[in-house]
Amino acid sequence: MTHSPSRSVGVVLFPEFELLDVFGPLEMYGMDPDAFQLCMVAEQAGPVASRQGPVSIAEHAFPDDRQYDLLLVPGGQGTRKQVDNPVILDWLAAQAANAEYVTSVCTGSALLARAGLLDGVRATTNKKAFGWVAGQRGQVRWEKEARWVEDGRFFTSSGVSAGMDMTLALIARLLDQETAEQFACWAEYDWHQDAGWDPFARIHGLV
Amino acid sequence: MTHSPSRSVGVVLFPEFELLDVFGPLEMYGMDPDAFQLCMVAEQAGPVASRQGPVSIAEHAFPDDRQYDLLLVPGGQGTRKQVDNPVILDWLAAQAANAEYVTSVCTGSALLARAGLLDGVRATTNKKAFGWVAGQRGQVRWEKEARWVEDGRFFTSSGVSAGMDMTLALIARLLDQETAEQFACWAEYDWHQDAGWDPFARIHGLV
Repeated sequence: MTHSPSRSVGVVLFPEFELLDVFGPLEMYGMDPDAFQLCMVAEQAGPVASRQGPVSIAEHAFPDDRQYDLLLVPGGQGTRKQVDNPVILDWLAAQAANAEYVTSVCTGSALLARAGLLDGVRATTNKKAFGWVAGQRGQVRWEKEARWVEDGRFFTSSGVSAGMDMTLALIARLLDQETAEQFACWAEYDWHQDAGWDPFARIHGLV
Repeated sequence: MTHSPSRSVGVVLFPEFELLDVFGPLEMYGMDPDAFQLCMVAEQAGPVASRQGPVSIAEHAFPDDRQYDLLLVPGGQGTRKQVDNPVILDWLAAQAANAEYVTSVCTGSALLARAGLLDGVRATTNKKAFGWVAGQRGQVRWEKEARWVEDGRFFTSSGVSAGMDMTLALIARLLDQETAEQFACWAEYDWHQDAGWDPFARIHGLV
């Protein structure tokens, strides 16, 4: 196991977030509690219901005076409302200015895009909702066929389960490859390590 | 989409449950809220902290007078304590008597075993923790190499991410194959449909 400084992960919750977008990545970060400190953040502290119903607790409300090292922005039906919510968009912009890495899963990239963070940046998103997300901001260099896209400090993944592959890739970057492979093995997870692997782009008629 | 009667899924929470053991399967069931009604249940209603830290809400406490159609028992570090907790074991035994299907992920099968539900039943579990789980009850027909095992009303999966593959297999059984494949596609998930696929048994020296 690599010994590295602890990083805080700011996990953004909002009503109707998608369960696996959040908890897939957190399963992977959570393999080493010394390396990653998980912090659930929302517009208001307290219970937040997922798209599927089950409720999670946000410990922190934004705006606050914390700065997170890593940001995780999930997707889900709730992004349809949040793209017009200046409270979350302003907070994302302020946090992203100083975060080490900014990540999104699924339609979470629509929020980063609407916060103006992805202008000129290569990014991807859910393949079934690709048209809606790409339509949120034309200045983003949207990529149709990718499991995830890395561009500088921004890691954006395709839909839902792709967040696990992306998070393991980021863990390999932050810690090392062997540790990321160990985490995948402990989760008995078949990690797709190729960011270009994306059969779903074809299934959804994007390529 | 198949139209079928709605089934309730009783999702068992306890302190230090493993995040993906719960939310991987719920992502899949949650693709059709008309077919599957997700109910979070614990010894006490209210917040329950996962092994990784993030907290989920149990809506219902056991014992109660509800009967769930499907049971989902996750694993996680917390199973080490729960195998000696008669409150959860008695509840599992009572629920399992009338449930349509009883499922576990990872070390969750240790709880089913200790509740006496798996005697003579073929079952599997997490491959890193195999020895500990198998030692909980010798009367179970433990299988070392399996992504998941189906034996009558019991579906038990291997570690963590294997719960998603098992749940999709159960959805295929309850609804139909095409619907299960559709759910996997919406989650952009590479469903391992072969219950015998298990590279982790070899990695962990079990075969």
